[in-house]
Amino acid sequence: MKSNTINELYEIYAPIKEGLSRVEDNFKALVEDKKESFPELYDMLVHVLAGGKAVRPALTFLAGSCFDYNLDRLLPMATASELLHISTLVHDDAIDKADTRRNRQTVNKLWGIEKAVLFGDFLFARAGEFAAATDNITVVRLFSGTLQIISSGELKQSFGAFSLDQSFDKYLERIGGKTASLMSMATESGAILSQASEKEVRALEKYGYNLGLAFQIVDDILDFTGDEKKMGKPVGSDLVQGTVTLPSLLLLKYHPDDNPLAEIFKSKDKQKSVKRAVAMVLDSTIIDECYRIAEDYKNKACRELDRLPDNIGRKCLLKLADYVIERNR
Amino acid sequence: MKSNTINELYEIYAPIKEGLSRVEDNFKALVEDKKESFPELYDMLVHVLAGGKAVRPALTFLAGSCFDYNLDRLLPMATASELLHISTLVHDDAIDKADTRRNRQTVNKLWGIEKAVLFGDFLFARAGEFAAATDNITVVRLFSGTLQIISSGELKQSFGAFSLDQSFDKYLERIGGKTASLMSMATESGAILSQASEKEVRALEKYGYNLGLAFQIVDDILDFTGDEKKMGKPVGSDLVQGTVTLPSLLLLKYHPDDNPLAEIFKSKDKQKSVKRAVAMVLDSTIIDECYRIAEDYKNKACRELDRLPDNIGRKCLLKLADYVIERNR
Repeated sequence: MKSNTINELYEIYAPIKEGLSRVEDNFKALVEDKKESFPELYDMLVHVLAGGKAVRPALTFLAGSCFDYNLDRLLPMATASELLHISTLVHDDAIDKADTRRNRQTVNKLWGIEKAVLFGDFLFARAGEFAAATDNITVVRLFSGTLQIISSGELKQSFGAFSLDQSFDKYLERIGGKTASLMSMATESGAILSQASEKEVRALEKYGYNLGLAFQIVDDILDFTGDEKKMGKPVGSDLVQGTVTLPSLLLLKYHPDDNPLAEIFKSKDKQKSVKRAVAMVLDSTIIDECYRIAEDYKNKACRELDRLPDNIGRKCLLKLADYVIERNR
Repeated sequence: MKSNTINELYEIYAPIKEGLSRVEDNFKALVEDKKESFPELYDMLVHVLAGGKAVRPALTFLAGSCFDYNLDRLLPMATASELLHISTLVHDDAIDKADTRRNRQTVNKLWGIEKAVLFGDFLFARAGEFAAATDNITVVRLFSGTLQIISSGELKQSFGAFSLDQSFDKYLERIGGKTASLMSMATESGAILSQASEKEVRALEKYGYNLGLAFQIVDDILDFTGDEKKMGKPVGSDLVQGTVTLPSLLLLKYHPDDNPLAEIFKSKDKQKSVKRAVAMVLDSTIIDECYRIAEDYKNKACRELDRLPDNIGRKCLLKLADYVIERNR
């Protein structure tokens, strides 16, 4: 990990510092509101609303800062993006029966799967309320449409789990649904709420989508190369869940007859075969190839920004794209 | 059950027949859309979108028919009300690990809890898209707010399960959150979308809410008195789930020291104690008292209608209120 990653992010976020701190204020108010009236919900909110790199709200604010930046107009949507993101994590962890995330116990581990599902629903709803508070029906439609793409993508992933019938297109569709659509919503809504032209809105939509693809590919790489302590979850988790990501997809491609994936998906004790799969990936050029593909999408994202005015917002979006690829590398 | 209940409903629905059939068309289109692209989702949609008494869409249309009735304007919201209702049932059943509903296997029984959660999310999202399709930001805010009330209510019920620390106020708050809020959304949105005055919107909001309370109280009565075959689930299910409803609340009140509730909530084999609790309720005046309370709320609902113009829509809403109390009595 480059030592200056956090400083880098600090610099990128400088022009939108007030916005991000107002999102924090919204979260604090949301939490405090439940302290007396519903202490159990208060505890759950405190648990999930702590920390995070706030990439999605930052995308909304930075997209807005390319045009007629109005903090009050952007704030509800920036808050909605992050809450929607958190709610999908809560449901994902519940469904995967994951014990930890970012070195902390998951909601389902602490409160049980049933309450995690209901709590995720609550966060969805709260996110929807913030989206509606923009008073902009185009943005609200974008929000609902995104939620539908995400949930239908997760469902597809769930039905496709533990299957070796995979392709790069299916993978792209899957990560498009689960990650890129939300990032694209974040930038597109920022543009819409800041009087960008139709051409500029589309450019930021595509920037967000391609950046999201790059972001998820890097995430999927880190599931193989990452430091367990820093990630706060075991290496190879995706394979344990039956999810084929880009590194294992390439492993299938290069070793169609000699790879442990079928074994992992069949056997109950997956640990040994997962270790073998991770070692095979690390012992090949697969990770480099994955980074090249991620960089291609990042570059595609950045090219979209050529269509925007050259200002501080655009500069920060370019830097954020680099950060996405370089984090933890 | 009164033999003419279905005929009654047919009569009440007569003025809004076309609207209800257009909701069906929306469902058919939603289902067909997935036939090729996502066959597993198609199967799930076919399973949950069959049948149902369409009370919620009917409430939206009937509320609208009291004023400037415009089918195209009401249709997306009527569709959203029913989809939101269905999505909450899907999550509820998954959380309760219920095997059957209305004599059919539940989604979680057929596809597993994980997929039921994701499918519920998909339905939420689709409902949200229909709500946004009204192009009316007030209605969208109402939709998101309702979803928040419902999920926070379910969470409260979940945290309060298997507790004997109950009160009538807590019960009202709970059924308000889980049932009345959605019915109130259905009528209020119908009024908003049909140019009702503020006074009339509030009257229909309160009608929907009080009718919802009556509706849920009758549902809770039927959990004690109902015919297992007709209900499609075992008698006393609520107690098995640890949920204290009005009949068991009154049992606690009249038999503070001699009732099997503590036993039910503690023991693993609940069946025998549940049977004893059901017998104690049936062998008392509790059910009559519950019906009296339900009727009070129904009457409260109907009194709100005094503030509306005297027309066919208002007449049907009055009849629907009677139907809610009389069904399966």
